[in-house]
Amino acid sequence: MSNDTFLRALRREPVEYTPVWMMRQAGRYLPEYRETRAQAGGIQDLFANPELACEVTLQPLRRFDLDAAILFSDILTIPDALGLGLYFETGEGPRFRNPVQNEAAITRLKVLQTEKDLPYVLDAVRLIRRELNGRVPLIGFSGSPWTLATYMVEGGSSKDFARIKTLAYEQPQVLQHLLGVLTESVADYLCAQIRSGAQAVQLFDTWGGALSAAAYRKFSLQPMQSIVEHVKAAHPDIPVIVFTKNGGLWLDGILETACDCIGLDWTMDIGVARQQVGERVALQGNMDPAILRASPAVIRQEVADILAAYGHGNGHIFNLGHGITPDIPPEHAGAFIDAVHELSPAYHQ
Amino acid sequence: MSNDTFLRALRREPVEYTPVWMMRQAGRYLPEYRETRAQAGGIQDLFANPELACEVTLQPLRRFDLDAAILFSDILTIPDALGLGLYFETGEGPRFRNPVQNEAAITRLKVLQTEKDLPYVLDAVRLIRRELNGRVPLIGFSGSPWTLATYMVEGGSSKDFARIKTLAYEQPQVLQHLLGVLTESVADYLCAQIRSGAQAVQLFDTWGGALSAAAYRKFSLQPMQSIVEHVKAAHPDIPVIVFTKNGGLWLDGILETACDCIGLDWTMDIGVARQQVGERVALQGNMDPAILRASPAVIRQEVADILAAYGHGNGHIFNLGHGITPDIPPEHAGAFIDAVHELSPAYHQ
Repeated sequence: MSNDTFLRALRREPVEYTPVWMMRQAGRYLPEYRETRAQAGGIQDLFANPELACEVTLQPLRRFDLDAAILFSDILTIPDALGLGLYFETGEGPRFRNPVQNEAAITRLKVLQTEKDLPYVLDAVRLIRRELNGRVPLIGFSGSPWTLATYMVEGGSSKDFARIKTLAYEQPQVLQHLLGVLTESVADYLCAQIRSGAQAVQLFDTWGGALSAAAYRKFSLQPMQSIVEHVKAAHPDIPVIVFTKNGGLWLDGILETACDCIGLDWTMDIGVARQQVGERVALQGNMDPAILRASPAVIRQEVADILAAYGHGNGHIFNLGHGITPDIPPEHAGAFIDAVHELSPAYHQ
Repeated sequence: MSNDTFLRALRREPVEYTPVWMMRQAGRYLPEYRETRAQAGGIQDLFANPELACEVTLQPLRRFDLDAAILFSDILTIPDALGLGLYFETGEGPRFRNPVQNEAAITRLKVLQTEKDLPYVLDAVRLIRRELNGRVPLIGFSGSPWTLATYMVEGGSSKDFARIKTLAYEQPQVLQHLLGVLTESVADYLCAQIRSGAQAVQLFDTWGGALSAAAYRKFSLQPMQSIVEHVKAAHPDIPVIVFTKNGGLWLDGILETACDCIGLDWTMDIGVARQQVGERVALQGNMDPAILRASPAVIRQEVADILAAYGHGNGHIFNLGHGITPDIPPEHAGAFIDAVHELSPAYHQ
C-alpha cells in the first residue's frame, strides 16, 4: 500500500503525520456527488449500484489528500434487507414502509446473510479496493444495533425516541431480541465486508448518546462488544473503530469492547480523552463540523488547537466529530485536510 | 415555610426524604393546563398575564406532592422584551420576527431593565408567592445567555446551530457583545425575581451541550459564571442551580461558577457525578423523562435505581433529566413523585 498511515495510527504505531478522513466525505457537499446522484435518480440508486457506489466513494479522494476511503453506503441497508422497505422522502430523511413496532413483527425477523441479502455492498467493496489500487486503506462500516433499532422501531428519524424507549422500558426482552438479531447481522455484515476487502471497520452508534448511562450499557454498548468480539475472533488484524455520538461520558465502557480506536464527537476534549484511555486505544476525531463554515484561517487554528490538545505521539486519527454537512464549501474541507497534514508532522518527531 | 426540604437539600443540609420537582411541571401534559391555555388564547396570553401564570404554576401542586413550585414563564421573555418580537407557530415552536443576525442588529441591543421591561413576570412571582402561602419554595429561572443567543441568532429552534456557530467562529467579538448584553440582562432578571419573592433560581442552559469543550467554556460557562457571581453578590443566601443539558463532561467547569447545585440530564450516572463533585455542590436530577411513558412499576424501579446510585446522605434533589413531555399521563407523573417520597427516606436515616 502506498499510504498506510491510517492503519498504523489505528495500531498506535509511529507515523510521519496525523492521518485524516471525514465522516460522510463522499456526500452532498461535493458538486460531483450531487451530479452523479441526480443522474442516477436518488440515493438508493447510488448505494445499490456497485459502480456508482465506487464512483462516489472515490470522488473526495480525487479532490483531497485523504488518508482513507470509506465505503459509500447507507446506514440502513441491513433493515432494508431484513424486509422493512427503506425509502427516502425529500427533506424528511429515511423512512420504512414496514417498521417493527410490536413483538410479533420483531419475532419474525431473521438474521442477515450478507452474501445472499446484500451482494451489491460486497461487490462495491471489491470494486473500490480494485480501483483504489493500494492508494489508501478502505474502511467498511455499519450502524450499531441500537442505532439501527431506533430507525426500525420509530419508522425513521426521531427526536425523542418515544417508541423505542417505551419498548426498552416496558418490554426489554422484546428489544433484546431485536438487538440480538441485529448484533448477529452486523457481525456478519462487517465480516463479509472484510472478506471482500475492507481493511478497517467502524461501528456508527449515532443514537447511543440518547440513552441513560445504564441503558447505554445494556442496549448499545453490550451489542457492540459482542460484535467486536465476533469480528476480532475471525479477523484479529483488522482494526475496529467504535463511534458513539455524545458518548464522551462512557469512554471506559467503550474501551471494554476491546476496539482498537474510539471515535469522539466534538464535545469531548481530546486531550482529556487521551489522558483517560489513550494508553490503551487510538482516538479518532474530533473537530466540530460546524467550524467548516468558517474561513480557512479559523479552520486552521482549530486544527492546531486539537493537535495541541492531543499532543505528541501516536494513536491519533484526525476526523470531524460527526459527518460533514451539505452546505460546506469543498475548498473549506480541503483547507481542513491540508491543515492537518501541514501542522501535524511537528507532533510526530 | 411548611416544607423547606428543597431549600435544605440545595444547601446539602439533612432532610427527611429526597425532595422532588419536575422541569416543565406546569405544562401541556396536564388537562387543566390545556384548558386554561385554550381559554386564554395561546401560551403568550398565559405567561404575560400574572393571574393566569400563577394559576398554571399552582396546577401541578394541586395534583402532586411536589417540593417546589417553579414560575410559569417562557424561556424567551428576555429576547422578546429586547425587541425581537416573539411569536409561536403551531407545531413549530418559538420564532422571532426580528432575529439578530448581524453586527448592526446586535450592537443596537440594550440591556434589559426587568422592572420596566418585564413587570408582568415580577407581578406573577409576587402573586405566586402570596398564593403559595409558604407551602413550598418558589423557583425563579432564566435561560442561559448562550441558550437565549441561539434562538436570537437562529430566529427560533435549530438543529445544527449553523448561524450562531458561524458567528462564534467568524466574529467571536460580535457574539461576545451579544452574550455580554444577555449576561447583564439575565443577572438583572434573576435578581429582580429574587427581590419579588423567588427563593431559588435556575439557569437553563439547554443548548450549551451543542458546543465543543473549549467553546462551551468561552460562550456558555463564562457568562453563567458572571451571572452566578452577580446574583450571589446581591443575594448570598439564595441558592443557584445551573443546568446544562448534555453537560455531564463539564461538571468540574460548572462547579467553578460557584453555583449551589448542578442539574444533570439522564446521560450522566448520578453516582459518578456525586463522586466527582458531590462534596462541593448539590446535584439535581436525573431520570430520563421518556421513562414516564412506562408503567408505574417500571417508573418506581428507575427511581429506586437513581436513589441507590446517589446513595445515602444529603445534597440530592430528584428531578427529570429534562422537561416532562406533553404525552405523559398525569398519573405516571404522580407515580414518579410518590416513588421518590416513599423510597427515599431510607437514604436519609
